[in-house]
Amino acid sequence: MKKFVIVGLGLIGGSMALALKGFEGFQIVGVDVSQPTLRFAREHGVGDVVTEDAGQAVEGADVVMLCLHPQGILDFLEGYKDRFKPGCLVTDVCGIKSAVMEKAGCLPQGVDFIGCHPMAGTEFSGVEHAFAEMFRDSHLILTPRESSTAEHMALMERLADYIGCRDVVKTTAAQHDAILAYTSQMMHVIAVSVCDDENLFTCKGYEGSSFRGCTRVAALDVGLWTQLFSLNAPALTVCLDALIDHLQEYRAAIAAGDREKLAAKLAVSADRKRKMDLPGPDLLG
Amino acid sequence: MKKFVIVGLGLIGGSMALALKGFEGFQIVGVDVSQPTLRFAREHGVGDVVTEDAGQAVEGADVVMLCLHPQGILDFLEGYKDRFKPGCLVTDVCGIKSAVMEKAGCLPQGVDFIGCHPMAGTEFSGVEHAFAEMFRDSHLILTPRESSTAEHMALMERLADYIGCRDVVKTTAAQHDAILAYTSQMMHVIAVSVCDDENLFTCKGYEGSSFRGCTRVAALDVGLWTQLFSLNAPALTVCLDALIDHLQEYRAAIAAGDREKLAAKLAVSADRKRKMDLPGPDLLG
Repeated sequence: MKKFVIVGLGLIGGSMALALKGFEGFQIVGVDVSQPTLRFAREHGVGDVVTEDAGQAVEGADVVMLCLHPQGILDFLEGYKDRFKPGCLVTDVCGIKSAVMEKAGCLPQGVDFIGCHPMAGTEFSGVEHAFAEMFRDSHLILTPRESSTAEHMALMERLADYIGCRDVVKTTAAQHDAILAYTSQMMHVIAVSVCDDENLFTCKGYEGSSFRGCTRVAALDVGLWTQLFSLNAPALTVCLDALIDHLQEYRAAIAAGDREKLAAKLAVSADRKRKMDLPGPDLLG
Repeated sequence: MKKFVIVGLGLIGGSMALALKGFEGFQIVGVDVSQPTLRFAREHGVGDVVTEDAGQAVEGADVVMLCLHPQGILDFLEGYKDRFKPGCLVTDVCGIKSAVMEKAGCLPQGVDFIGCHPMAGTEFSGVEHAFAEMFRDSHLILTPRESSTAEHMALMERLADYIGCRDVVKTTAAQHDAILAYTSQMMHVIAVSVCDDENLFTCKGYEGSSFRGCTRVAALDVGLWTQLFSLNAPALTVCLDALIDHLQEYRAAIAAGDREKLAAKLAVSADRKRKMDLPGPDLLG
């Protein structure tokens, strides 16, 4: 039986195990170090089999998907690089790709690596919040190596289809990290910065949907986001500088009291947003 | 028959007319200057009666709710101040209150005014996007005058209940404007500023729910928000300065590469968000 190992049964790994149930006849093996997580996974059918023995699970595996925090992925690659069988596909799910792809260079010849980032998640963490529909209508980003095989790329595309992704986007690690600094990491920096405002606790009863939409992700997983911000610091600081410039421009236009100028500026920004014309459902429930 | 006049059948006024259908036996009279709007309202039962004659509608009205853009409300109060009958309650729905309450000082003795702001809306505008459930589970903020009658306050509270609001929050115009600069206007400045980023059009395929949540409101009604920002400029610039400071602090922590310090900072912000513990449904659909 073909073996698909998911290392780390947190929110994403757990959801992946649930979503992949029955995929092409693979046996889904879940690995975690936490006993409560393993117990929950066993009781709720998260994976066909679960184990705490990563080494044994990885041996003979056809696919190994690393669903750990970024630093955990780097450490796992280093620690288990000699345990994968030849022809194995190793992949991951994390939100930074340059550091991961670079570290994957330690894998022996014949072990393939394709960076993977499903653009899905919630503000919760842990296997108890996992659900099979997590990836429905989300983008799946792939950052293959030049040497990645066509068979493995095709496998990842069928996987994306099976778990319900809207599309598969293929790019480089550098491009991924530059854009994710903007579309994801910066959104989290904004959310926590807004929550640092002294008015936060007095504003209860005055929040509308725009406030909820912007600050929802502020209740973040501190360990995870510390790593994501740190491992992508150069790209993220560039984005933040641009944002602060744009905010300063709006601040100046508002303070100047020139309504015509402010309206012209707003018309440009609102038009840009409309042109983006983002399709797809809102995943903010 | 008691007469409840809604002046302005846009997104909010139209929704209010739909939500108030059957309220305490009032005849709901909708007023608008746009023929397409009046035709749509007539065909879709937005209001029991609709008319373009604001003067005639206002005469004999028991309640007049001004659902115009902020500047339109100020102009309407000035233009029609002598047309309200004694004992009439005039109210509004707009997102700034100091300028409105001040202008309402022009109403003759015996005409009551209670500032009102239902914390609901979508990124769309116009009567064709109006719906009766708009106010379901939202906050309704009231800024009465000192002289506002208990009967009128009770009427507004029954109205809030009838249209499905979660609660009624009573406050002063100054407090309302300081907090709304933070919870609403600043969210819109953030959204448009994010959309000013040069990466906007290249990020398609890389947006997750945090990006959608933050930027949803960027496709805003330019005229409306120009007025809201301008009429609340002092409070809004204070908020923006605080936000830029908080962003700069995160930028510095990320650039410094000190993961421990960054984690400590994130822990504080995430904890603040969790303490806020905002209840209620997400209205971001």
